[in-house]
Amino acid sequence: MSGDAGAVARRAQVVGTGLIGGSVGRALRDRGWYVTGSDDDPGTEALAVEIGAIDAAGLDLTAEVCFVALPVGSVAEVSRAMLDRAPWVVTDVGSVKAPIVSAVDHPRFIGGHPMAGSEQEGVRGSDASMFSGAVWVLTPTETTDPDAQALVHSVVASFGAEVVTLDAAVHDRVVAVVSHVPHLASATLMGLAVGRSGRAGHGPVLRLAAGGFRDMTRIAAGHPGIWPDICQENRSAVVEVLDELLVELTEVRRIVDGGEREQLLARLELARDARMNLPTTVAKPEELTEVRVGVPDRPGVLAAVTALATTLEVNIYDIEIAHSAEGARGVLILVVDSGPLEAFRAALEEDGYAVSSRALT
Amino acid sequence: MSGDAGAVARRAQVVGTGLIGGSVGRALRDRGWYVTGSDDDPGTEALAVEIGAIDAAGLDLTAEVCFVALPVGSVAEVSRAMLDRAPWVVTDVGSVKAPIVSAVDHPRFIGGHPMAGSEQEGVRGSDASMFSGAVWVLTPTETTDPDAQALVHSVVASFGAEVVTLDAAVHDRVVAVVSHVPHLASATLMGLAVGRSGRAGHGPVLRLAAGGFRDMTRIAAGHPGIWPDICQENRSAVVEVLDELLVELTEVRRIVDGGEREQLLARLELARDARMNLPTTVAKPEELTEVRVGVPDRPGVLAAVTALATTLEVNIYDIEIAHSAEGARGVLILVVDSGPLEAFRAALEEDGYAVSSRALT
Repeated sequence: MSGDAGAVARRAQVVGTGLIGGSVGRALRDRGWYVTGSDDDPGTEALAVEIGAIDAAGLDLTAEVCFVALPVGSVAEVSRAMLDRAPWVVTDVGSVKAPIVSAVDHPRFIGGHPMAGSEQEGVRGSDASMFSGAVWVLTPTETTDPDAQALVHSVVASFGAEVVTLDAAVHDRVVAVVSHVPHLASATLMGLAVGRSGRAGHGPVLRLAAGGFRDMTRIAAGHPGIWPDICQENRSAVVEVLDELLVELTEVRRIVDGGEREQLLARLELARDARMNLPTTVAKPEELTEVRVGVPDRPGVLAAVTALATTLEVNIYDIEIAHSAEGARGVLILVVDSGPLEAFRAALEEDGYAVSSRALT
Repeated sequence: MSGDAGAVARRAQVVGTGLIGGSVGRALRDRGWYVTGSDDDPGTEALAVEIGAIDAAGLDLTAEVCFVALPVGSVAEVSRAMLDRAPWVVTDVGSVKAPIVSAVDHPRFIGGHPMAGSEQEGVRGSDASMFSGAVWVLTPTETTDPDAQALVHSVVASFGAEVVTLDAAVHDRVVAVVSHVPHLASATLMGLAVGRSGRAGHGPVLRLAAGGFRDMTRIAAGHPGIWPDICQENRSAVVEVLDELLVELTEVRRIVDGGEREQLLARLELARDARMNLPTTVAKPEELTEVRVGVPDRPGVLAAVTALATTLEVNIYDIEIAHSAEGARGVLILVVDSGPLEAFRAALEEDGYAVSSRALT
């Protein structure tokens, strides 16, 4: 072997070669991985190979990581089966996390959720850059092997995603607020407009739908089939947030009906300010810092450190674990943006970790 | 006089040189009009001249048309004052129409509402192409002079807008569905997310807001100051639609809580289909047809004919009224797209009008 031709590609498996699985495949291939994909539907599997979303169809049991990109209702069962099949690290892309991580509960499994998508459906809509600039949530548990977490973190960060580590239950409540209930509200508004358009004299209702309405209802154009699963798996959080929305909309109705101009204005100004301050895609920091943290070599430690980073809004660009020879302690090597570094360092030291850092400029 | 230099520009007045007034000014200037603008704020008025949204500051009482581009709460009073000042045709751009058209009630006034906007604020955000492809609603009444209606119709159609003629009360109910309540819902969802982000462990709520949430809350970034007026003027329709939304969301909550997968899917599929069929910008028809309609020369006739066109989804690209010498009858000359022509023609004849047409290919 000589030169590049001799470089051995890292190998990955994708289970489910639809929109997200196909995009994961493309993102991996763009970074030099050899990707094998499988799908219950042989046509989808063949199409994924044909259009270059994956290299080959089937199961590659020598792969180091396996992405389960299936509807949320079947993730747990398939992930468990995959963990039994090979010694790889398994991760998923499901929109609900607590039921999955508690059902799988395995050191080599880490729950994941890329907060990206598209109105496209299926592998034909797949896109290697889908995750660039998107948030990718990881939800490690006490059981998760830090090496497994670090591997998945590195791979998805290499896609350009901002990795955010969260407790699975917190993730589920958060996505109920920023994704699930907004989707249901969008579909409901669309339904109201359609219902109106059938009334006498209201024919032009939909012709008057301008940019704001189009924006608000765009997500209602998404694939409906995924929602019964999501709403079932995340039922309690979705119902809780719907209840909050009902309370707040009832209050808005009271304010409008009562002509309470100041109260209405205050609510809209709060929303405007919040919307304008909504974090956008994280810019590449001008400076990165490598942080070394001495950690006991046991499950849960990496989860604790990465959750702390999320709380302090420290973006982790890369992660590596150097195990000590004795096996009792290791060193966690993180590459983070330099901005919030001091707060992160102080919080780590307060929790008893030994920390050193050096700028990577 | 010789050549183009001798062409006398048509003259228009814009009252209120903010975002919409400035955009009207630019659209008119692009089409060769000489535009004078006035604003309560002398700084805004001067800025509008400086950046070229209008030609001159002040009131040009020789203008043939006057656009009142003020907040909806002051449109009626200012429009009446403008009708007293000069013999021009006055129109407005307010988001609520019934209170305005009933308060002004003058042959030379026609209510209007361009269904366009921007997150921009003020004249600096003004844009000559803002109305291109947008729907511009006109709400004539029995009082409206057909010549006044035809003039405004022609001018705003020349901006590239699709002119839709509606009864003012129907307009108000429709915009409650497609604009006012969606705005309130968007702001309320944004408020829920902000409220959550203050809770323990929920810090990253807003970092997880992906494309769908951004789309849904984009309109919440709009200028809050206009909404107390809009909600006050359109209170009954807004409250009615909010009540419908509350009923429907309560039903969605029941469906999710009860795990009724089929019902949920049916609702989401209905919304998806409706969203995908939402009419987009009207394409320029390949063929246009000139339609001549003999009409009694009295108020209300043009309103009836144009409302019929709206019902039948016939887009009127140009409009002209040829008055007969005797004054008792006239001919309405419309340029419409050829597609739905036969239905339009049949409906007109059924209503007793004499109709002739010729293709303009």
